[in-house]
Amino acid sequence: MQRIDLAAELARIPETWSPQTVARVNDVDVKLVRLEGSFEWHHHQHEDELFLVVQGHLTMHLREGDVELEAGQMLVVPRGVEHRPEAAHECHVMLVEPHSTLRRGNLEAGGGR
Amino acid sequence: MQRIDLAAELARIPETWSPQTVARVNDVDVKLVRLEGSFEWHHHQHEDELFLVVQGHLTMHLREGDVELEAGQMLVVPRGVEHRPEAAHECHVMLVEPHSTLRRGNLEAGGGR
Repeated sequence: MQRIDLAAELARIPETWSPQTVARVNDVDVKLVRLEGSFEWHHHQHEDELFLVVQGHLTMHLREGDVELEAGQMLVVPRGVEHRPEAAHECHVMLVEPHSTLRRGNLEAGGGR
Repeated sequence: MQRIDLAAELARIPETWSPQTVARVNDVDVKLVRLEGSFEWHHHQHEDELFLVVQGHLTMHLREGDVELEAGQMLVVPRGVEHRPEAAHECHVMLVEPHSTLRRGNLEAGGGR
């Protein structure tokens, strides 16, 4: 059984927008990701997705309005809800999402998800 | 869609050893708990359980040896593994565990879990 240090794991991730799975809890993965810049609008048809900011500042664009997140703040984007994460400066985020989740959701699944 | 601030939520919890669910991600709950002192040895027959220390220091006693966790460090205790959390001083923890998880695991389920 292995202790996981978030900062140490994040320091090992070479690229931004490349989530690394660091733990599995039943059917969900816990991932760490370094974000900088802007991602695409997408959604996950069947999966809720939790974003917890570990370091930095994350803007989650939603069709209903933006949500701003600092370190120690989190947001659950429910399945089916379009979202677009953006970080003006490098931001470190912990994700909790079902193992089946595709990174770019519907954009990767050919519209089927 | 609601931003969740971990410190603000933790400040609202009146009692120690009383996990509060702050988010649901598909089949798992994200809970916050204030710990101080020692809990009982227990296990969860079907549920893995993630402990992420938000503030303070947590000792997770395991039959194979203790794991010490500081803020920003986490541990997944797999289903079936006996564990006993202990915090010499107040410690704030985020839990990720299936919705079905009982707080005291097998001790609550009459040995059935």
